[in-house]
Amino acid sequence: MKPDNGKKHVVIVGGGFAGIACARELARHSHLHITLLDKNNYHQFQPLLYQVATSQLSPSDVAYSLRKLFAGRPNVEVKLGEAAAVDPAARTVTTASGEVYQGDYLVLAAGARANFFNIPGAEQHAFPMYSLDDAQRLRSRILQVFEEADRDPRLIGEGALNFVVVGAGATGVEVAGALAELIRDSMTEEYPKVPVGQAKIYLVDYGHTVLSPFSNKAHTYAEKVLQDAGVELRLKTGVKEVAPGHVLLSDGAVIKTRVTIWAGGLMACPLAGKSGLPQGRGGRIDVLPDLTAAGFPAVYVFGDLANIPNPSGGVLPQLGSVALQAGQWAAANILADLAGKPRAPFQYKDKGIMAMITRHAAVVEIGEKRHELHGPVAATMWLGVHAGLMTGVRNKIDAFVQWTWSYFSRDRGPQLLDRTDLPRIDWTEE
Amino acid sequence: MKPDNGKKHVVIVGGGFAGIACARELARHSHLHITLLDKNNYHQFQPLLYQVATSQLSPSDVAYSLRKLFAGRPNVEVKLGEAAAVDPAARTVTTASGEVYQGDYLVLAAGARANFFNIPGAEQHAFPMYSLDDAQRLRSRILQVFEEADRDPRLIGEGALNFVVVGAGATGVEVAGALAELIRDSMTEEYPKVPVGQAKIYLVDYGHTVLSPFSNKAHTYAEKVLQDAGVELRLKTGVKEVAPGHVLLSDGAVIKTRVTIWAGGLMACPLAGKSGLPQGRGGRIDVLPDLTAAGFPAVYVFGDLANIPNPSGGVLPQLGSVALQAGQWAAANILADLAGKPRAPFQYKDKGIMAMITRHAAVVEIGEKRHELHGPVAATMWLGVHAGLMTGVRNKIDAFVQWTWSYFSRDRGPQLLDRTDLPRIDWTEE
Repeated sequence: MKPDNGKKHVVIVGGGFAGIACARELARHSHLHITLLDKNNYHQFQPLLYQVATSQLSPSDVAYSLRKLFAGRPNVEVKLGEAAAVDPAARTVTTASGEVYQGDYLVLAAGARANFFNIPGAEQHAFPMYSLDDAQRLRSRILQVFEEADRDPRLIGEGALNFVVVGAGATGVEVAGALAELIRDSMTEEYPKVPVGQAKIYLVDYGHTVLSPFSNKAHTYAEKVLQDAGVELRLKTGVKEVAPGHVLLSDGAVIKTRVTIWAGGLMACPLAGKSGLPQGRGGRIDVLPDLTAAGFPAVYVFGDLANIPNPSGGVLPQLGSVALQAGQWAAANILADLAGKPRAPFQYKDKGIMAMITRHAAVVEIGEKRHELHGPVAATMWLGVHAGLMTGVRNKIDAFVQWTWSYFSRDRGPQLLDRTDLPRIDWTEE
Repeated sequence: MKPDNGKKHVVIVGGGFAGIACARELARHSHLHITLLDKNNYHQFQPLLYQVATSQLSPSDVAYSLRKLFAGRPNVEVKLGEAAAVDPAARTVTTASGEVYQGDYLVLAAGARANFFNIPGAEQHAFPMYSLDDAQRLRSRILQVFEEADRDPRLIGEGALNFVVVGAGATGVEVAGALAELIRDSMTEEYPKVPVGQAKIYLVDYGHTVLSPFSNKAHTYAEKVLQDAGVELRLKTGVKEVAPGHVLLSDGAVIKTRVTIWAGGLMACPLAGKSGLPQGRGGRIDVLPDLTAAGFPAVYVFGDLANIPNPSGGVLPQLGSVALQAGQWAAANILADLAGKPRAPFQYKDKGIMAMITRHAAVVEIGEKRHELHGPVAATMWLGVHAGLMTGVRNKIDAFVQWTWSYFSRDRGPQLLDRTDLPRIDWTEE
């Protein structure tokens, strides 16, 4: 499908930070027609998914209708559909239901999926944390095991209240910290018959520290905060197997659990392999410095789907801020190209990295500067930064209300065990 | 399971208005121990489910954790479990997973389910509107057909944008009106390529009017408001069959549709039939005026599960306010019984009935007084009344924020097509 209005057509696959940022920039130019294709009808605000999983925010606080987002942009067409095939030479994308979109430019920003590194059982039994659906499923599972422990406290001996978080990057640290707070602040009160104090959270990583991209001082701080919150660190330790009822670690330890949370890394989504484009580390598409695929100057790839060269060596990390800036940069390159000007190599402006460890503790590092945020200011600053990144005004307000309310009242958000499609836990199965 | 603290034990099945009201009254008396059993871990605020289905409120706005609700009541124990069997003589309830709860008093308030009146295909293909899960499924389906119409506008000829609401009581009227507004206010803007004006909403009822419990003037008013909103009324018309792709009406008309919304009446949930207690109209358990089951003075049945005699003849209607008052009354009777005093027959105080037709129009009837609410005041008053009924403070605030925001901005709420367990629509199937 092409627009019959004579406009240049840009087809964007993926409505995450990368795709949205690109579409927004291009939308300002009325001589362009933009088709934005996503398998969901909503944008998901990934940095806050861990809050959905831990019942702090509701799903609608971190998701926003893509159609609504572009409702005032007549030259942006939002389409629901899963990209099933892509032809870089023809600049076409074909959806699972057979629609074909052909662009003068093709933008691939379809994102990632969890990388289970072929660890036996991980894909089948661990709960990934990349999509809103993942977060909702995990929320229900966490509530499910508490209900099971309430029904039969002997199941605690079977690991009903053990939680294993694999991967101690920002997502893993955030979910482990938030889970510890959920248990301490809410579950203790709501399950008076359950010995909630026996709950254990293990944070496993093969690296020697948590939050490895941060400074050494941040490592020490984050580890202390996590340990004070009751999280048991298992560093320099890999995962050898995930079974329905346990996790086997590289040091031979077996942890009985029904909730293994996978924050252990990302790989490109399956579209990368179907594109025929060269794949590098993590299955991601290796792109040129101007964000185009080698040999296809009208095909852009960025976000979690791409390995973008870092001028100072290696590739840029998979971060929302990289995705966002790359989307804006790609839009500028497309406009330059149309104007007969040269494309420029992407220059990422590092605005810093941050991680929320608990509601009272966050680390922010901007260049050489390191900030530890303690007490109420931590949550407020973190909120400010994320609210600024948020793409829909409404979400901004709602999340603010929910957050502040939850913060001041310690009245947790929506603890809805509402995934009726989750299977019952079979405690005889190992 | 019985408390080993020597306290009298009341087992309540169902955490709707009826069960909660009863538990709250009993919880004030520390010489009682109360077990509240529900198949969900949350209370659902049924009068606003239609707003979830039409993307005005998010699921967490109308659901509240039962454990949280009773967190400050040490003598109330909340249990997650589906009541699978009940023995009135032994005053026991057995759950699907085999737990047995025995009470000195047994309270059955497990609610209802949609009554499809054995109409062929209705149970398989229509979307009921009784539970939060129902509302979430319906929301996704409504969004799904719009996406389908966007993908291939020819499907509009197959009924992709036809909606059939069966039953013109309060729920049917509210969902039809809200759907008309959703389409007019949001879909027109968000699906610019879809001829949204071709969408049709049919409201079908075998009665001769909408909102039959209301006065004739209210009928006229509601019908005018609905027709002005674009809802086509098919009164004095029954449904003969619901197929995957159409609905067959009693006058022989066939309406092609993929969204048949069932607001056509309720029947008792399956527990009624398993109790051995006498069932009357709608499969509901016929109870004595004091809300006990005949022959079982320690077994109370009320809410949507019961036919409660109306002193002025017939039985009381299935209304939230009846359920709420009956719960309080039953608690008083249990306390009287324990004190050796006689149980009193239930006296329902009719505080009026109301229905929200659209955001700008509601009818409220209190005794002989009838109020038509127009313009902004309608939504505000309606909100006030419902907020007053709301059981959790937090929900009150959130719903208020969402509502007022949605009202003033016309920025709809969470249009999340997030039910991944809904099947794809097969357009070849009839």
